[in-house]
Amino acid sequence: MGKRPTIYDVAARAGVSKSLVSLVLQDSPRVSPDKREAVLSAVEALGYTPSRLAAGLAGSRTRSVGVVIDEFENLWFAPVLAGLRVALAAERYSLSVADAELNSHLDLDPLEAFRALRVDGVILAGEASAAALARLGVPVVVLGTRAVEVPGIPTVASDELAGGRLATAHLAELGHSDIACVSAPGASAAAREAGYAAEMRERGLTPRIAHAAHTSEAAAGHAAAALLGEARRPSAVFAVNDPMALGVIGAAAQCGLAVPRDLSVVGYDDSPLAAYELVSLTSVSGDPRELGEVAGRELLALLGGGQAAPATLMPPRLVQRRSTARR
Amino acid sequence: MGKRPTIYDVAARAGVSKSLVSLVLQDSPRVSPDKREAVLSAVEALGYTPSRLAAGLAGSRTRSVGVVIDEFENLWFAPVLAGLRVALAAERYSLSVADAELNSHLDLDPLEAFRALRVDGVILAGEASAAALARLGVPVVVLGTRAVEVPGIPTVASDELAGGRLATAHLAELGHSDIACVSAPGASAAAREAGYAAEMRERGLTPRIAHAAHTSEAAAGHAAAALLGEARRPSAVFAVNDPMALGVIGAAAQCGLAVPRDLSVVGYDDSPLAAYELVSLTSVSGDPRELGEVAGRELLALLGGGQAAPATLMPPRLVQRRSTARR
Repeated sequence: MGKRPTIYDVAARAGVSKSLVSLVLQDSPRVSPDKREAVLSAVEALGYTPSRLAAGLAGSRTRSVGVVIDEFENLWFAPVLAGLRVALAAERYSLSVADAELNSHLDLDPLEAFRALRVDGVILAGEASAAALARLGVPVVVLGTRAVEVPGIPTVASDELAGGRLATAHLAELGHSDIACVSAPGASAAAREAGYAAEMRERGLTPRIAHAAHTSEAAAGHAAAALLGEARRPSAVFAVNDPMALGVIGAAAQCGLAVPRDLSVVGYDDSPLAAYELVSLTSVSGDPRELGEVAGRELLALLGGGQAAPATLMPPRLVQRRSTARR
Repeated sequence: MGKRPTIYDVAARAGVSKSLVSLVLQDSPRVSPDKREAVLSAVEALGYTPSRLAAGLAGSRTRSVGVVIDEFENLWFAPVLAGLRVALAAERYSLSVADAELNSHLDLDPLEAFRALRVDGVILAGEASAAALARLGVPVVVLGTRAVEVPGIPTVASDELAGGRLATAHLAELGHSDIACVSAPGASAAAREAGYAAEMRERGLTPRIAHAAHTSEAAAGHAAAALLGEARRPSAVFAVNDPMALGVIGAAAQCGLAVPRDLSVVGYDDSPLAAYELVSLTSVSGDPRELGEVAGRELLALLGGGQAAPATLMPPRLVQRRSTARR
């Protein structure tokens, strides 16, 4: 990681003065578009984030915390909020939440919106640009596996590589050897898929990965239909999230295959639908409530002027239901 | 409805002066708990809401709209937000969203939180007390079927009684006569259930209603298991929401009944899971995106100093999938 970059590093890289960098970070209109662009590029390249002290100088705050999520449709964030409430209650911080789309009609990034609301800190449970993070000027804790590179910002995440291993080991221990993975784009899916591939290789089995176009039920169903139509049909599938696992089960039903008799299926996230009687899906749980609570405590440490752990990786667990059976 | 109550009506009913009512509505600490209580009781009893003028006097606003929903777990609100964005983009209002729990760790009602944020208006897509509404002091549009009585506040809702009729008529036209309804607590469920009962009676059929303890999949499964265990088993079930319909299908599977061969099932809300291949649930759609857009336009009318329609009731439609079949 190296040393945390300073405002001087940004100024040097952008070829401007330190005070001009400050003006850009304060969103001043007295900066030319060229110089603004140069500074923001340098901020992004270096992964620069302003110190708490500089943030404090920006004025009074509101005793509130903003939570940025990817999309409200992904129910993973509801227990995250419950965990955050437990942590933040002690110091009476209020919560606001926004997904990437909430103010897209104004071309307004959720981080920019939280900056305007003068929140004291942010839980980043979605993607963001390093430039937007730097301009935010308040402490941030990243929650979950994110593609964004944020040197100096603490991360609390479930160990999703371990989760992919857990799902795969469960299927292998049930006697399956032809185990496929239905994966999708995104940092989280990539970590789960990598865990699957590592566990397969460690057991001397050959990974067989079908990539769906999206993380949706429909896209996974499409990918699974192709997989199940092949001459050598897998006897088990690990899907990188629960809706995708439902897509796999739906595709299996269309081929006349019963789950778990003809095909064992494991999902990921232990979402409410995994527990539905009709579905009864074996799934990997990252315990989002606990992640929220830990991330909230880390943010309080930063808000109190202390240090947070650079990275906390929580172990996931397997929730066994009726979608997996002995080969 | 009668005439809209004024601040003088509130003062008269509470036995205090008009300026004391103002102080209570401004949350002044200079009011005794007894008098505050008397004023808020009068506000609630009369359904009083301050005028836009009074709200304007309360200070500068933020060009933002707050959306209150019941719970983030109910995905119905995601397309509502998309519709609101379409309406609010023209006049560049930003959006904030909160469910009943978001700031429960501070005992902070979402309406109180939005008041503190100085939002310009509120879309109430969840329950609220008339007192909290009155203290809010900005225009409000109620979205959906709510238990709260709010004279003078415009409502935009899907006609859920018509939706209950639609589901029941569909099953009757497929040749079913022994059609049960699995209902649950809440204003929305009550309207859907009332539509079912009205349609049944109009067709000379006997309503048969099982009440689940909650609106959840598990509670509906429990209620359905009892229903399907009776000597005279229904051949079709209308469940008042989609997760509940999944609970019914799960209970049927446990009794060895296949859907739709042995049991036709209709849900409500046309949620993402209704379209899942494995589920393929016939469901009633209230088009939440359109509701959001209409409610947003009504709120803009109020914010512009104009009038809104007192009540807009939108017709729902039936989305047919594979969970229903001819008897």
